[in-house]
Amino acid sequence: MLTYDLSQRGKRTMYEFLYEKMKDDILAGRLAKGEKLPSKRALSEHLAVSVKTVENTYDQLLLEGYIRSEEKKGYYVNHIEKVTGNGPAYASFVTKYQEEEYLADFTANNIHYEKFPFATWAKVMRETLTDYDTSLLKTVPFNGVEALRVQIAEYLYRYRGMQVSPDHIIVGAGTEYLYSRLLQLLGQDAIYAVENPGYRKIAKLYEANHSKWTYIDIDKQGMDVDALRQSQATVIHVSPEHHYPIGLVMPVGRRQELLAWAAQEKERYIIEDDFDCEFRMVGRPIPSMQSMDRSHRVIYMNTFSKTMVPSLRISYMVLPEKLMERYISTMNFYSCTVSGFEQYALASFMEKGYFERHIRRMINYYKQQRDFIKKVIKVSELGKVCKIIETGAGTHFLLHIDTPLSDVEIKWAAKEKGILLNCLSEFCFENRERYKGLLIMNYSDMEERQLRKAIAALEEIFCE
Amino acid sequence: MLTYDLSQRGKRTMYEFLYEKMKDDILAGRLAKGEKLPSKRALSEHLAVSVKTVENTYDQLLLEGYIRSEEKKGYYVNHIEKVTGNGPAYASFVTKYQEEEYLADFTANNIHYEKFPFATWAKVMRETLTDYDTSLLKTVPFNGVEALRVQIAEYLYRYRGMQVSPDHIIVGAGTEYLYSRLLQLLGQDAIYAVENPGYRKIAKLYEANHSKWTYIDIDKQGMDVDALRQSQATVIHVSPEHHYPIGLVMPVGRRQELLAWAAQEKERYIIEDDFDCEFRMVGRPIPSMQSMDRSHRVIYMNTFSKTMVPSLRISYMVLPEKLMERYISTMNFYSCTVSGFEQYALASFMEKGYFERHIRRMINYYKQQRDFIKKVIKVSELGKVCKIIETGAGTHFLLHIDTPLSDVEIKWAAKEKGILLNCLSEFCFENRERYKGLLIMNYSDMEERQLRKAIAALEEIFCE
Repeated sequence: MLTYDLSQRGKRTMYEFLYEKMKDDILAGRLAKGEKLPSKRALSEHLAVSVKTVENTYDQLLLEGYIRSEEKKGYYVNHIEKVTGNGPAYASFVTKYQEEEYLADFTANNIHYEKFPFATWAKVMRETLTDYDTSLLKTVPFNGVEALRVQIAEYLYRYRGMQVSPDHIIVGAGTEYLYSRLLQLLGQDAIYAVENPGYRKIAKLYEANHSKWTYIDIDKQGMDVDALRQSQATVIHVSPEHHYPIGLVMPVGRRQELLAWAAQEKERYIIEDDFDCEFRMVGRPIPSMQSMDRSHRVIYMNTFSKTMVPSLRISYMVLPEKLMERYISTMNFYSCTVSGFEQYALASFMEKGYFERHIRRMINYYKQQRDFIKKVIKVSELGKVCKIIETGAGTHFLLHIDTPLSDVEIKWAAKEKGILLNCLSEFCFENRERYKGLLIMNYSDMEERQLRKAIAALEEIFCE
Repeated sequence: MLTYDLSQRGKRTMYEFLYEKMKDDILAGRLAKGEKLPSKRALSEHLAVSVKTVENTYDQLLLEGYIRSEEKKGYYVNHIEKVTGNGPAYASFVTKYQEEEYLADFTANNIHYEKFPFATWAKVMRETLTDYDTSLLKTVPFNGVEALRVQIAEYLYRYRGMQVSPDHIIVGAGTEYLYSRLLQLLGQDAIYAVENPGYRKIAKLYEANHSKWTYIDIDKQGMDVDALRQSQATVIHVSPEHHYPIGLVMPVGRRQELLAWAAQEKERYIIEDDFDCEFRMVGRPIPSMQSMDRSHRVIYMNTFSKTMVPSLRISYMVLPEKLMERYISTMNFYSCTVSGFEQYALASFMEKGYFERHIRRMINYYKQQRDFIKKVIKVSELGKVCKIIETGAGTHFLLHIDTPLSDVEIKWAAKEKGILLNCLSEFCFENRERYKGLLIMNYSDMEERQLRKAIAALEEIFCE
């Protein structure tokens, strides 16, 4: 009869141990297919355990299908294919996503963590826990917590000139996530156009979603309307507040041409990517394209990643009425991807004025940063071989360098000195030569000492 | 010359008011295309405002492209197409997503909010704010915070018999979100098979993602392997721990047949949907199919929506090595969709043992609920015309009713009495007749009084 050394069971209960042992024997073929098991009473006497222990063991083996019970006959071992291979299913495969060390990273449009009012944010989160209590647990509507959508609508009214109902806003975990939903909403027939040069990650999203897409050159006003008209595109992705990385503000004339293009045909839309619109260093906020749209063709997208922190993962989009209705009727089975708690906390942070205060402070801080870096460049040797091209929008500018080096050589030379750089040509789908020798300088998370060292290193590259 | 009544400017600054007025005039055509504007000095004298005010106004109009500056000549109005249509871009469109009032909802596999240890969770969140401080702001790795992935791996080891490296886990904002990523990862050539009957929302996700899919009948052990072999399917979606809504535990023999099917060809995979696996009312936890997989073909998915709360929006999947490598090389540009803060808080909640304690308590609570509702049914008139079909898994069971009513008639009769019900036939893609008269009873968020009333109402329908 089955015999197991029950003293070896360690911390396991008798029943767990017996179950494991019998299971192992069945899987290894030591208990063969069709073999009749001893009766519960017989096995309990043999092993000197309670009948209940054997009963629990048999029940579990039955439940998992290792054995079967035949009425009035007893328990039999089932046919189980032998397991081939051995050891744990997964090796202790450990991937290292080690970040490289560097002196300065001009490629990252990051926030300056130390400038974020964490204490205030933590206070608001604590208050939210107390104020909302268990109502924080409730399932969030598919488009986000209403209190947050109301705050967003008010913010858009005050700062972007937009009159938007909170019911047109969809809150989601990041712009990429909302973009995926949007691509689904617009369907497989849509053909997307991005700006050349432009933000390449958008094209990556199209690729990953198997969407058709193309690129269209920009001129000094933004996306070329004639080229757009000649293309097959039905949906365009633009950043009228300022083009990244060129910084161009799309003038009102071009905006209206694009709006007119969209209004001409059904199912034409404009995705207005308003990332970083809050950080305008010169002049007052420029109203969004959405606020000029009379034909309900603009889909507005923005995020709290830069205005708050990236780890918060809250973005939103504003859909025109027709698309919102389509979303509700076809896609509202997708649950909202942002936790209720953080939506309530952000709504409260906005309502209490902390959000706008933080943005005002950051604009001032970034202005100082910008003036500082520009000054350092101007008084350096580098200043003699470069020209700063800046439009007062966003937390970056372009540096045009007079150098025989190719853009690839620039990148490698910089990298050897511990400086991560992107060139404008990297944002081109074609016509790279037109944009040669233009470095993109993201300065938002730089510190003074770091900046001075980085500029000195660039001097060594370009001023030998 | 341009004349505006500056006394009407309300709370706006002089510059804002002047800018708005001139912009309106240009858009309305009152300032015509090509018209020369007065010099800054002339307008400032005319309106009795400072030159600086006019300068700021002109600068902003220049920036937005309403006017242009011609060297040594002055400022001119640009050609702006007249805006057609009027009023705000969006009407005050307010959609009501009003929830219906009802006596009892047996369709929802919800949690019982009052049983969630909110005070402990709030305490852990407060501690997390204090302990991690500003490091909470850091950008989260694409696959989630390591501390949480470590806790998940340990939990899977203890409760699901799985040996999984934290590096194989991807944390995301909900199972639907992770599913979208997975469909992208597996590519457009994959053909998915779901169980019939089965969870129809999965098929909806395939549809929304334009993925090819089919369904395969289940027999008493789970998905029919012969039918599967005859199909074109390359990826199957199954719930071996217990089928929803039938409750069937897939026996080890069928599991191994499916694993063998997957191992036969490249790019065959099994998606193991382990939703609700934690709430096994009878016996000990059944090891997952992933833990039996020696060929690296099982993709394991689970969520904290039921074990914690749905509004938390944290799910995870465990990828086999090859798929993880593919994810890293092609899709790690997708940012993690869950906020860092809540990942740290959940990791701490798990590490401190609160998570497992909560699950143990909920199992006991749900057992009481189940026994209570079964008792109420048995002693009622309803008990005479129905049979409870229950497998001890998940927080629902089936009720087979002896009735001449069709399933549609049952639903409507129940609805009229304020009871929301799903029939098993609704989970069928075909062969609905085979599963006629089977009600799905989700009891997890029911209260005793509510249950008694609901059973009394069902009595009225079926026992007249």
